[in-house]
Amino acid sequence: MKHNYLNNTPLEQAQEIFFGAVAESGFSYTEETARVPDALGRSLSRAVYAVISSPHYNASAMDGIAVKAADTFGAAERTPVILTPSRYTVVDTGDPLPDGADAVIMVEDVIEAGDGSVKLYAAAAPWQHVRQVGEDICMGDMIAPTNTVVTPALIGAFLAGGVTEIAVKKRPLFGIIPTGDEIVPPTSAPEKGEIIEFNSAVFAAMLAGWDADAKTYPIVKDKKELLSAALETALAECDAVLVLAGSSAGRDDYTAEIVSALGKVTVHGVAIRPGKPAVLGVAKGKPVAGLPGYPVSAIVVMEEFIKGLIDRYYKRPPQPEATAQAVLGRRVTSSLKYREYLRVSLGGAGGKLTATPLPGGAGVISSLTKADAILTVEQDAEGLEAGESVSVRLLRDRRDVENALIVTGSHDPIIDELADLAQRQGCGFRVKSSHVGSMGTIAAIRAGQAHMGAIHLLDGDTGTYNVPYVEKYFPEGGAVLFKGVKRVQGFMVAPGNPLGIRTIADLTRCRYVNRQRGAGTRVLLDHLMERDGVMPDRIDGYANEKFTHTAVAASIAAGNADAGLGIWSAAKMYGLDFIPLCDEEYDFLVNETYADHPFVRAFFELLHSDAFAKRLTEMGGYKI
Amino acid sequence: MKHNYLNNTPLEQAQEIFFGAVAESGFSYTEETARVPDALGRSLSRAVYAVISSPHYNASAMDGIAVKAADTFGAAERTPVILTPSRYTVVDTGDPLPDGADAVIMVEDVIEAGDGSVKLYAAAAPWQHVRQVGEDICMGDMIAPTNTVVTPALIGAFLAGGVTEIAVKKRPLFGIIPTGDEIVPPTSAPEKGEIIEFNSAVFAAMLAGWDADAKTYPIVKDKKELLSAALETALAECDAVLVLAGSSAGRDDYTAEIVSALGKVTVHGVAIRPGKPAVLGVAKGKPVAGLPGYPVSAIVVMEEFIKGLIDRYYKRPPQPEATAQAVLGRRVTSSLKYREYLRVSLGGAGGKLTATPLPGGAGVISSLTKADAILTVEQDAEGLEAGESVSVRLLRDRRDVENALIVTGSHDPIIDELADLAQRQGCGFRVKSSHVGSMGTIAAIRAGQAHMGAIHLLDGDTGTYNVPYVEKYFPEGGAVLFKGVKRVQGFMVAPGNPLGIRTIADLTRCRYVNRQRGAGTRVLLDHLMERDGVMPDRIDGYANEKFTHTAVAASIAAGNADAGLGIWSAAKMYGLDFIPLCDEEYDFLVNETYADHPFVRAFFELLHSDAFAKRLTEMGGYKI
Repeated sequence: MKHNYLNNTPLEQAQEIFFGAVAESGFSYTEETARVPDALGRSLSRAVYAVISSPHYNASAMDGIAVKAADTFGAAERTPVILTPSRYTVVDTGDPLPDGADAVIMVEDVIEAGDGSVKLYAAAAPWQHVRQVGEDICMGDMIAPTNTVVTPALIGAFLAGGVTEIAVKKRPLFGIIPTGDEIVPPTSAPEKGEIIEFNSAVFAAMLAGWDADAKTYPIVKDKKELLSAALETALAECDAVLVLAGSSAGRDDYTAEIVSALGKVTVHGVAIRPGKPAVLGVAKGKPVAGLPGYPVSAIVVMEEFIKGLIDRYYKRPPQPEATAQAVLGRRVTSSLKYREYLRVSLGGAGGKLTATPLPGGAGVISSLTKADAILTVEQDAEGLEAGESVSVRLLRDRRDVENALIVTGSHDPIIDELADLAQRQGCGFRVKSSHVGSMGTIAAIRAGQAHMGAIHLLDGDTGTYNVPYVEKYFPEGGAVLFKGVKRVQGFMVAPGNPLGIRTIADLTRCRYVNRQRGAGTRVLLDHLMERDGVMPDRIDGYANEKFTHTAVAASIAAGNADAGLGIWSAAKMYGLDFIPLCDEEYDFLVNETYADHPFVRAFFELLHSDAFAKRLTEMGGYKI
Repeated sequence: MKHNYLNNTPLEQAQEIFFGAVAESGFSYTEETARVPDALGRSLSRAVYAVISSPHYNASAMDGIAVKAADTFGAAERTPVILTPSRYTVVDTGDPLPDGADAVIMVEDVIEAGDGSVKLYAAAAPWQHVRQVGEDICMGDMIAPTNTVVTPALIGAFLAGGVTEIAVKKRPLFGIIPTGDEIVPPTSAPEKGEIIEFNSAVFAAMLAGWDADAKTYPIVKDKKELLSAALETALAECDAVLVLAGSSAGRDDYTAEIVSALGKVTVHGVAIRPGKPAVLGVAKGKPVAGLPGYPVSAIVVMEEFIKGLIDRYYKRPPQPEATAQAVLGRRVTSSLKYREYLRVSLGGAGGKLTATPLPGGAGVISSLTKADAILTVEQDAEGLEAGESVSVRLLRDRRDVENALIVTGSHDPIIDELADLAQRQGCGFRVKSSHVGSMGTIAAIRAGQAHMGAIHLLDGDTGTYNVPYVEKYFPEGGAVLFKGVKRVQGFMVAPGNPLGIRTIADLTRCRYVNRQRGAGTRVLLDHLMERDGVMPDRIDGYANEKFTHTAVAASIAAGNADAGLGIWSAAKMYGLDFIPLCDEEYDFLVNETYADHPFVRAFFELLHSDAFAKRLTEMGGYKI
């Protein structure tokens, strides 16, 4: 019997308990010496004082002669003063003033008067054109207090003040122990049943962003003794340890147990979603965290506990977070049991941001790469209403969020290719696409949430594409339809088409994989089914919905389904056979307000570029 | 004869010419391969596509049994279905589904039925508790387009998609050649006439912030052949070269000449101040910049030309700059000949920022460490009026600017020590002090530009400190006086007091170094002079003004003056003799609005802390 019970401690309480235990254990920085030129971004562990003044001698600020100013008093246009060679010294910029000299006269104002003497028509003021000792920095002055983060200018000031080495806070070293029987190091050819271990690399990168270093240990199998030995090693070598996966209360979840054996688990289970099964404790005087195996869960725990842990190590105030106000795009429900974290996409062309929650569970790392921000729903809230104003934590620069052409709607790889071309040509904006289907395009444009989107909607009555839909949904204008590409739609089937799929009727004798409601491809299927009199309940898998052509292809290639409707390029990519059904018109619908927007114009220039034509040919199945 | 003529090309034109020439020379990134886990912050040189799907097989999302969903159809509370061992497989989370299985039933819902069979009371929906192939990422999908900067989440997505190496843009390598006969590497003990070379370290750090690397070459003497050879070497080894100093048109300024010999100088002299004598050209197909010797001048050239150069190398849009609106604190005049760059301090407690230009010439690196922002005055403007709203480029985070206790006024090293203690104890705010003298404190608090400041103002009529001034300048309240410290004021003189300075009258027979008008120490001197009937014109050096006690001490220690009025701690620091004159009250005047502000409260807690008392004792000359 294992004694693992998962609690549901509210976040603030869990933080208080964990950070309290960590403080008690004396978790804090040690000092080390850094060479000043290498110290950019480091945090001072003590104040830095100048050891010499800068300049450290009286230096000429000009090319000219150094004089005693009093010797020149009275010199004027009509009463020039002549100085014999012993009363002046020739100096270049930077040269030290000789003893007794307290002014420099520019070479332009010095007239030779024979015998090496010089004639002056103006008196020199004391200390003119002289950089006096300490003009910049005085010996003994504090150049920067403790905790200052070293900037390029400070590097200059330290060196100017004769400081070549400084005391800085040592960066904390986090040991990362990936665990799991099925886990393998990153590879492009994993065996079935092998799960690629990428979390350690993600967390090491996150730690780097918070000024911490990481040491990743080899993957440890789910055996208690092995895990315990690995944790002991990491505790001996590092300042803190992260154990990846095994943090829940299941059969093979040993983290809580091994931490208890070496120290104390202070929290096991936090009232957050995702991220609940976190283990937080202290062992051998060092913080240990057991992170959930799903990446998005673990990242939430990293943000809520490990970031704050590092701030405490450095004894620095919490690092500021960039936030923005946005309007919630759709209603979200939330459990009173958890504080919930939603990955959101920020859209809303025209200043006002709209936050739209992204789909995908805690295992879906790609949803994080698409997210612009994180929206938090507090534990005591049952959800948030559409249209509510919410504060979100930005995952990318605000200007980066705004510098985006928002293309919402039907999926086709050509949108990604256009996005890549835009970046490659340095267009200065990002193309941000989301796959909500052709009907989603229309909705997003009506709601002002997108600049544009792709549609390929067949009107069953007229047999024409797109135009009837635009007329129906924008009776008073508001959107402009731009010609896009023609592409072939057809059935994707296993190589050799073993089931001999040719017609819609054939779908009734295979496992089908469908596209989501609102997708143009789904509209096409439904139209063809109606035409041929095939009812949805006759098709096995009609309810098995995917959001992209490649997802349909992947499903067939994996043997999860026998046929799906989609585009040729996706079939080709997966080595599937393709049975063409029809040519369709994949056009672009643009919000009228943005029809002349520079991003939109640039997009269409790319669409008609040679570079894009070349890519289309490579992909296959398109015509411009 | 050298053919160096310094032009005055307007900034935009100079940028156009230089960047144009650079583009023509083909200056751009090359590609290199990076391991994904090491690629944080790198910029993709081409789009990254998934080479495998993630998951790459149908994986169980639960511990339980894998079944064919169709085998369970009809199972209900009253009509359980029994599956014999051949119809199900035990799976753990992450295990692959056996061929034919398309659903997982959680272990909790499985009842043993003897002979290894299981009983189910509910049907399984197809694909329940299964992470289907490609749920996260589909093989062939573009994970990120060209130019994307790699984030922690992208590292995860790449590895999940089977991508272990990516093509990134090589970081450009800048050769840095410091030049000058008088220049020496950083040291804490330079000889007279030796100038510490710190610019290369500053520029290397700036380049690092712009994603470029630096290789700093040994210092080259001002000899044309040596400089030319060094430039050739650097051009052969690096992507671009910076030559430090020697960029003007003086006797020893060879940069323009040697660049011309190896290529073409496109701009020599830009209409900016500081920064005018910049050399910008292309040699051997690579950009070369000759930077002015004064650090602030060179930094302006770096910002205006080298930053943009790096953006062009990467073919990325200009990196966004953080700006803020502020009210100009005092009038500034500016030449129509130049675009001018002013280092400003941002103050203004209470939301609205006030920008106050900092003193110091282009040689004063410490002014840059104190600056919060840069204010630009366009070339076509003659200046800006006090009170004008201006946009400034922030040098530190906006929150960092606002998280400051602004202490404006009289200088004493104890303010720096308190600032250090505040940082050390993690008070969560910065103490930002500026030295404008006791009268400056009163002005800043009246103008609402500071939270507080120090004063030590002797009232000649009553012989008392501070209170009469507060009564005079705040007749209707608005400021609160807090007791500070008592400190000894006296004459600082050379060791052994060779001139036997004891009284004010003695000052008439020495070279004096004074404090600036408005400083409490100056008010004290003027009071004592009046009392003793000594007129200012009797004192040599009365007009020689310094802004801090340490600057006065440094001046005497360097032999630039014989005596100055100041505090004991400064004299002690410089090994000077000290002749005590009087004890004075160094108190703190706080804007009434902020009397209860948490930063102010924390400041006074520190003032009365044991840690501070210990520092006072070490410094000497104070009593609390």
